[in-house]
Amino acid sequence: MADSNIYFDNASATPVDKRVLEDMLPYFSIHFGNPSSLHDYGDKAHGALDNAREQAAKLINAESEEIYFTSCGTESNNMALWGIARSLEGKGKHIISSSIEHQSIINPLKEMKKQGWDITHIGVDSDGFVDPDDIRKAIRKDTVLISVMHANNEVGTIQRIKEIAAIANEKDIALHSDGVAAAGIIPADVKDLGVSLYSFSAQQMYGPKGAAALYVKKGTRIKPLILGGIQEKGRRGGTENIPAIIGFGRACELAAQELEKNREYISGLRDDLIDGITKSIDEVKLNGHPTQRIPGSAHISFEFIEGESILLMLNMQGIFAASGSSCASQALKSSYVLTEMGLSPTLAQGSISFSLGKYNTSEEVDKVLEVLPPIVDRLRQMSPIYNKEK
Amino acid sequence: MADSNIYFDNASATPVDKRVLEDMLPYFSIHFGNPSSLHDYGDKAHGALDNAREQAAKLINAESEEIYFTSCGTESNNMALWGIARSLEGKGKHIISSSIEHQSIINPLKEMKKQGWDITHIGVDSDGFVDPDDIRKAIRKDTVLISVMHANNEVGTIQRIKEIAAIANEKDIALHSDGVAAAGIIPADVKDLGVSLYSFSAQQMYGPKGAAALYVKKGTRIKPLILGGIQEKGRRGGTENIPAIIGFGRACELAAQELEKNREYISGLRDDLIDGITKSIDEVKLNGHPTQRIPGSAHISFEFIEGESILLMLNMQGIFAASGSSCASQALKSSYVLTEMGLSPTLAQGSISFSLGKYNTSEEVDKVLEVLPPIVDRLRQMSPIYNKEK
Repeated sequence: MADSNIYFDNASATPVDKRVLEDMLPYFSIHFGNPSSLHDYGDKAHGALDNAREQAAKLINAESEEIYFTSCGTESNNMALWGIARSLEGKGKHIISSSIEHQSIINPLKEMKKQGWDITHIGVDSDGFVDPDDIRKAIRKDTVLISVMHANNEVGTIQRIKEIAAIANEKDIALHSDGVAAAGIIPADVKDLGVSLYSFSAQQMYGPKGAAALYVKKGTRIKPLILGGIQEKGRRGGTENIPAIIGFGRACELAAQELEKNREYISGLRDDLIDGITKSIDEVKLNGHPTQRIPGSAHISFEFIEGESILLMLNMQGIFAASGSSCASQALKSSYVLTEMGLSPTLAQGSISFSLGKYNTSEEVDKVLEVLPPIVDRLRQMSPIYNKEK
Repeated sequence: MADSNIYFDNASATPVDKRVLEDMLPYFSIHFGNPSSLHDYGDKAHGALDNAREQAAKLINAESEEIYFTSCGTESNNMALWGIARSLEGKGKHIISSSIEHQSIINPLKEMKKQGWDITHIGVDSDGFVDPDDIRKAIRKDTVLISVMHANNEVGTIQRIKEIAAIANEKDIALHSDGVAAAGIIPADVKDLGVSLYSFSAQQMYGPKGAAALYVKKGTRIKPLILGGIQEKGRRGGTENIPAIIGFGRACELAAQELEKNREYISGLRDDLIDGITKSIDEVKLNGHPTQRIPGSAHISFEFIEGESILLMLNMQGIFAASGSSCASQALKSSYVLTEMGLSPTLAQGSISFSLGKYNTSEEVDKVLEVLPPIVDRLRQMSPIYNKEK
């Protein structure tokens, strides 16, 4: 890709940090052993695995033995839901979740419903907040699991997990939080949050694709999703993806060290972008909570025009952002997250998600602020709805 | 690791071929996009994904759209078993498998049994063969799936999949074959074999850990194991592990191109190793079929001594092999595969699996043949059973 490219789609994928890749490289062709092997190659891989587990644990203030490596955030979420639900189905079959979860929560819950579980989806307000009190009211005697994401992957709103955890813990119900859009980006301390299960992933924090983890609090009973050998203490079979896990560990370590610095830097750029857009373009709306949001997230609706068209014209100028849900944009559906937050279908269709990261610069923000207004203007001139209202 | 090291444990993990790693590298930090993204970075990743899918399909003579990428062979096997079983549970709940499958088949079947499925495990003869006629006899009206591995990961015996498929197809029952120890090493043509589902993995063929696939024949109904976005046509959610999948594709391409050459070369080395051991050490037994075996596999039992002790002494001399099941050696259990083949517990405990690969040399074989006899001799001198019998 050209050096002049501007990548504002860090919520979909981040480039692997060079320091992370450097740590991974020897494990492909030199230290390539299977950690289960009883010889030096196995020992080398096993040692690296233990080290990565400590690094991952440290990022979220967990113990090493509470970290289970998986292949992606989606697998972690599936493992949490199915694992708890199947482990506790004798106790009850009611699960509470929010209506703006990632598809890797929404879709397993849909399948569970077909298989006889009862699911309550809690709605959100116009900022994308789940009201903890709504969770409290939804709890029943047969509720065995609550799953509410830490931060929303589309609009960036950070949920009140601590308050929800207090309710869950009071009722002795397991709380899972999908932290894929949060961990490594904002503080995510599982002890402070009070969760029993927490999903997080490397690819959102400058680590490689193919490595993620599920935190399972000591003493939590959970059935495995993928059964095989004794890897991950029998809770996740399959040869461990050593290079990716090493990269994940290192990415966690770097994220922890640089979290405050990155947060300040990225949110500064993001605020400049939002300010610039709202000042230079009229009839725009920032989605998600104005301050309780992840640092890089600027999710904006542009009245009268299609987000896809803006994206296309930005892409032609080497600027890359996202429309709708970042994980399945090719689905081309209007985002259910925005609909749940009460946005009109046209406003939802007219939205763009800019997600900034640590490699972005203020020059890039300036460039976008220069290029975007004429694009919006041109598209509005072509829009029948816009011309009708003017 | 030192250059003088001798790695004879290719069944546990292979080093990534330099040509494979080279293809992967740009996709970590340069072409790092999410294939679901609607911009150039997404397109680049998506194009690479399509290409890898074609390469993987070609290796096993499938169509691209019949290939579903997963994170490892264990996941592919779980996806096949749970996917078919859950899709067809209205039709019947009986599954037939062999008694020497990999743990990623054995353990899900164990869990299925707890959940109400009926499982028939077909035994094997002393060479590790499943008799296709035993499969025929085990078929019932409610049989919905047969799963028999293509080649055994421990002793290397290649099953008569074609004959089993003929029976399965005659009765209109889906046949899955775990090809993780076979694909890329011996010819594996899914159309010729006649299977409906086939698992294969990168890490056994000089590709990276973290990428594998399940072949699902067109028209086969299967439920997803991991639910999320629309990736892999909705049959496997989660952002695709692009670098690993690219490596897998290239590894498949290289394996296809070099299969005959590698097969001849590796089986030559392996035969020299077996001949040398059987000539220089008495009371040894080659396990698995003498000729119907994968090229690199030399699985040998040494009477009167422990395999673990041999391994340890070999390891001290920089020679690395495996004992018991290569995927979970740290479980330290006697191999059920050997027990099922009728080996006595002491003979099973006294076995070593040497698995050779394309990077091994005849000098390495010579070195092992020089070092091994005195090790065995020394251990036997220390063995109370040996001394009692002599």
